[in-house]
Amino acid sequence: MPTEKRAARRARLRVIPLGGLDGIGKNMTVFEHGGDMLIVDAGIMFPDDDHPGVDLILPDYSYVLKHVDRLRGIVITHGHEDHTGALPYLLKDLGRPVPVLGTRLTLGLVKGKLDEHGIKKPRLREVRSGSHVSLGSFGLDFFAVNHSIPDGVGVFIRTPVATVLHTGDFKLDQTPIDGRLTDYGALARFGKSGVTLLMSDSTGAENKGFCRSEAEVGAALDEIIANAEQRVIVASFASHIHRLQQVCDAAVAAGRKVAVTGRSMLQNTRIARDLGYLNIDDEDILDAYETSGIPANKVVVLCTGSQGEPLSALARMANGDHRTVTVERGDTVIISASPVPGNEKAVSRVINRLTKGGAHVVHRGSADVHVSGHAAAEELKLMLNLVQPEFFVPIHGETRHLAAHARLAVSVGVPEDAVFVLDNGDVLEIDEDEARVSERVDSGVIYVDGTSVGDLGQVVLRDRQHMSQDGIATIVVVIDSRTGKAAGDPEVVTRGIVFADTDSVLEEAKTRIAKTVAKTGREGVTDHAVIRRAIRESLSQFFWERLRRRPMIIPIVLEV
Amino acid sequence: MPTEKRAARRARLRVIPLGGLDGIGKNMTVFEHGGDMLIVDAGIMFPDDDHPGVDLILPDYSYVLKHVDRLRGIVITHGHEDHTGALPYLLKDLGRPVPVLGTRLTLGLVKGKLDEHGIKKPRLREVRSGSHVSLGSFGLDFFAVNHSIPDGVGVFIRTPVATVLHTGDFKLDQTPIDGRLTDYGALARFGKSGVTLLMSDSTGAENKGFCRSEAEVGAALDEIIANAEQRVIVASFASHIHRLQQVCDAAVAAGRKVAVTGRSMLQNTRIARDLGYLNIDDEDILDAYETSGIPANKVVVLCTGSQGEPLSALARMANGDHRTVTVERGDTVIISASPVPGNEKAVSRVINRLTKGGAHVVHRGSADVHVSGHAAAEELKLMLNLVQPEFFVPIHGETRHLAAHARLAVSVGVPEDAVFVLDNGDVLEIDEDEARVSERVDSGVIYVDGTSVGDLGQVVLRDRQHMSQDGIATIVVVIDSRTGKAAGDPEVVTRGIVFADTDSVLEEAKTRIAKTVAKTGREGVTDHAVIRRAIRESLSQFFWERLRRRPMIIPIVLEV
Repeated sequence: MPTEKRAARRARLRVIPLGGLDGIGKNMTVFEHGGDMLIVDAGIMFPDDDHPGVDLILPDYSYVLKHVDRLRGIVITHGHEDHTGALPYLLKDLGRPVPVLGTRLTLGLVKGKLDEHGIKKPRLREVRSGSHVSLGSFGLDFFAVNHSIPDGVGVFIRTPVATVLHTGDFKLDQTPIDGRLTDYGALARFGKSGVTLLMSDSTGAENKGFCRSEAEVGAALDEIIANAEQRVIVASFASHIHRLQQVCDAAVAAGRKVAVTGRSMLQNTRIARDLGYLNIDDEDILDAYETSGIPANKVVVLCTGSQGEPLSALARMANGDHRTVTVERGDTVIISASPVPGNEKAVSRVINRLTKGGAHVVHRGSADVHVSGHAAAEELKLMLNLVQPEFFVPIHGETRHLAAHARLAVSVGVPEDAVFVLDNGDVLEIDEDEARVSERVDSGVIYVDGTSVGDLGQVVLRDRQHMSQDGIATIVVVIDSRTGKAAGDPEVVTRGIVFADTDSVLEEAKTRIAKTVAKTGREGVTDHAVIRRAIRESLSQFFWERLRRRPMIIPIVLEV
Repeated sequence: MPTEKRAARRARLRVIPLGGLDGIGKNMTVFEHGGDMLIVDAGIMFPDDDHPGVDLILPDYSYVLKHVDRLRGIVITHGHEDHTGALPYLLKDLGRPVPVLGTRLTLGLVKGKLDEHGIKKPRLREVRSGSHVSLGSFGLDFFAVNHSIPDGVGVFIRTPVATVLHTGDFKLDQTPIDGRLTDYGALARFGKSGVTLLMSDSTGAENKGFCRSEAEVGAALDEIIANAEQRVIVASFASHIHRLQQVCDAAVAAGRKVAVTGRSMLQNTRIARDLGYLNIDDEDILDAYETSGIPANKVVVLCTGSQGEPLSALARMANGDHRTVTVERGDTVIISASPVPGNEKAVSRVINRLTKGGAHVVHRGSADVHVSGHAAAEELKLMLNLVQPEFFVPIHGETRHLAAHARLAVSVGVPEDAVFVLDNGDVLEIDEDEARVSERVDSGVIYVDGTSVGDLGQVVLRDRQHMSQDGIATIVVVIDSRTGKAAGDPEVVTRGIVFADTDSVLEEAKTRIAKTVAKTGREGVTDHAVIRRAIRESLSQFFWERLRRRPMIIPIVLEV
């Protein structure tokens, strides 16, 4: 064996998840072998209430930027934003063109995003289930998986020292809408050829049994739409093309047109129809802004807003401010989705408003109008048994999901010490003898906030939370530079603070400040920082006594 | 018939829900007949993320205060805070002693709350299932109901013109822990004697079938605790005495002591044991701060924090900062509750942290460790069929729950026009011929925020939300009163705003402000309001251009 090949064989495979292990979202895993680097997925996470004002959360990919010369390509397993959304930011930061591999629909959706970000000529490289691609020392085999978006794949990664099977997001739907089954044959073949490491989707690990088939939703939609007497409005994820197909089929079968509304719903139905993933005659689908004249019982409105997003089409309808769709007594609204954790209350708010408006709202609690896109416990065990991996890393989930998935692996015979529940940034090194966590690289989050990417830190987030809880008081004190004494009365401006008697409390506050400044003046204090601290302390004490609140206090000292 | 009696008979019954119809919480209903007023329940609602900084939400009971002379008494159906929490505020505002009627445990818990608020000698009047009480022209019969707290009652209200059956919160548990069944006999009897109006708990109206029995939870707890190898920690609602009883029984059966922690858990176990509702030997129960020396496998920790509350005992354990309980690898944590809508993410966060710490967390998704306290659809139908009301008002729920309950009523034969889905403040008038909504009285919410009750309005809430999303910028400009021109450079202080390059953006902002002020100076503007508006507009425009954000802008103009 030539020395070179032997050296390559000796090189370790390094597996580094940079995201996806601390919650649902920002999925991203780095693979390194010899001088080559490969990335699988580059997703975002949507911020929750702990991140007020934040637009998006990206994984911290500074490790990739440090070793950008090694990067041979980026594989995108499917077109959901928690797998694609960081790509525009990453590609801009890489500073050199890198191939992006994905299936036809995935790249179609990615291209839309990259266009929006003004990324002109990305090196998009289409693959399909069954494709083999070599990137540096990585040999990649793509295989079909079912998920809540068409054209999803997993990837089997071969290196001279070890192999990895990365499932992407998947379920094992035995009756998929498009007839494209998860490729059991390929999984069994990879298993037989030897899988060193399985990395498998954990989102559904706490759900018992098997995930129900997408086809079951079709039957429920058919029935509801066929029996509806007035308008039907269906809200769903815009990327869930199979669901949209089933809505279209049910509508057409009931002699209704499909009226589409909501920016991403319009965009995705267009892309999916252009690429042949959504099939409906031109005459049966139209923009909701063009529905005037069509009777209510001849229309199914297909819209965004299944998560209760305040500016979405469905929320506008619920609030009575959608441009063309007004919900009327007797209309049927189907929420064909489940709330992402954290959105429950927002979804409920929309359901309540629509109900108040007289609509009959059907949701997953009242009819079979939604199934998950993620494998449940029995499917995850089947995956483990098909693949027979030497080592196992649960991915894509909160800690609770990863732990549940680890227990499932142990229950089907994977030795406990062969299961690695990792943190983002952990480096799992695999050589011919063993797998072990060898070190940690930089990991964490990058906040996108308005035009800023990565500048937002914990201080600003804490300040925002502090102000939203307790309000803010700004105090301006003018000091005569010759005497060190206050020139005139202090100004106090507050926002977000509640007073039983605003005027008297503010007068008292001013008196306190004046006393404090008089004291520092007498003591000969001229350092503005010291004066500011004195004002902050005395006023904080005052507000606590009077209001049982600790507003943020901003003292400004000017000198004249 | 004497004229007086005939007049009383002619007097209408007015039913006015002041809370409980726009969400789960702040339950309160007013009944008026002739010159007499009766209140059933006086609860709070817990604020959600739309109410940053708010401590509690009370129903607006100004209507009651306007007619305080008519008020004959307040009935409390059970000891949950969404039925009792507004009582201290209401009693203080009433300005005169009014009888408060409730069962032994309910009054025990109420008394604790009133003590905390410094209400010294409330007129508490104990009733029990089967009690009859007269208050003015109201005849009250109390009847037992099952719920997730012992000693709950509903009340049958007789007036000369009509009768009302108010269920309180209830379920129909066929194997209640304390053997105290919902009083089916009484319900049938009232039904036979004639119920004009049924007001029934809607919280569970969207749930199919029957609610499972509390006894099923006991079996699951027994098994988990008996098989645990190390410490067991159980988090539950402190008021759920039946649940606490089952935890105590399972612990004692497994040879373990019960260690209690969390303020409300300590308080409620004490009250419930004092009053005979919680039975456990003194030697088997102790404060968690006194557990040193007891081996981990001989203890069950009973704690607060089932809702993920950040300062609760369980959250402290999850964060590693509880004073005496440190979660260790192999410990079992049982979350014996379901998250109240809006708390899902907080609960998940605690589960993730405990899992990370090595605990095995059991929750309602993974084992039968919780059942609801609210009747599901079939129980609600049974209630309707037992009571056979002439009119029906669904209470206690969000719009979606009220609507679902209304559909259930229609499905068992209540005519659609006999079902009234009301809003808080609606006045339902019932006379011998009909029931109709005759008018609306003041209703809404009162925010408790620090020491302030009722002073917080929408402006302050919007300000808080605005600052938490986009931050705040305070600008101080000093103007020379003789020349109208700026004296010195403007000061800019920001909080919660993100800059890629703080210094340069703030310098630019100052330049803009200086230009704006120079312009107003040239134009001879001396009105500070006009100068402030000019600053606000130019800076708002600047921040939008540079940051795609619209922070709150507070211009302060001083004159020297």
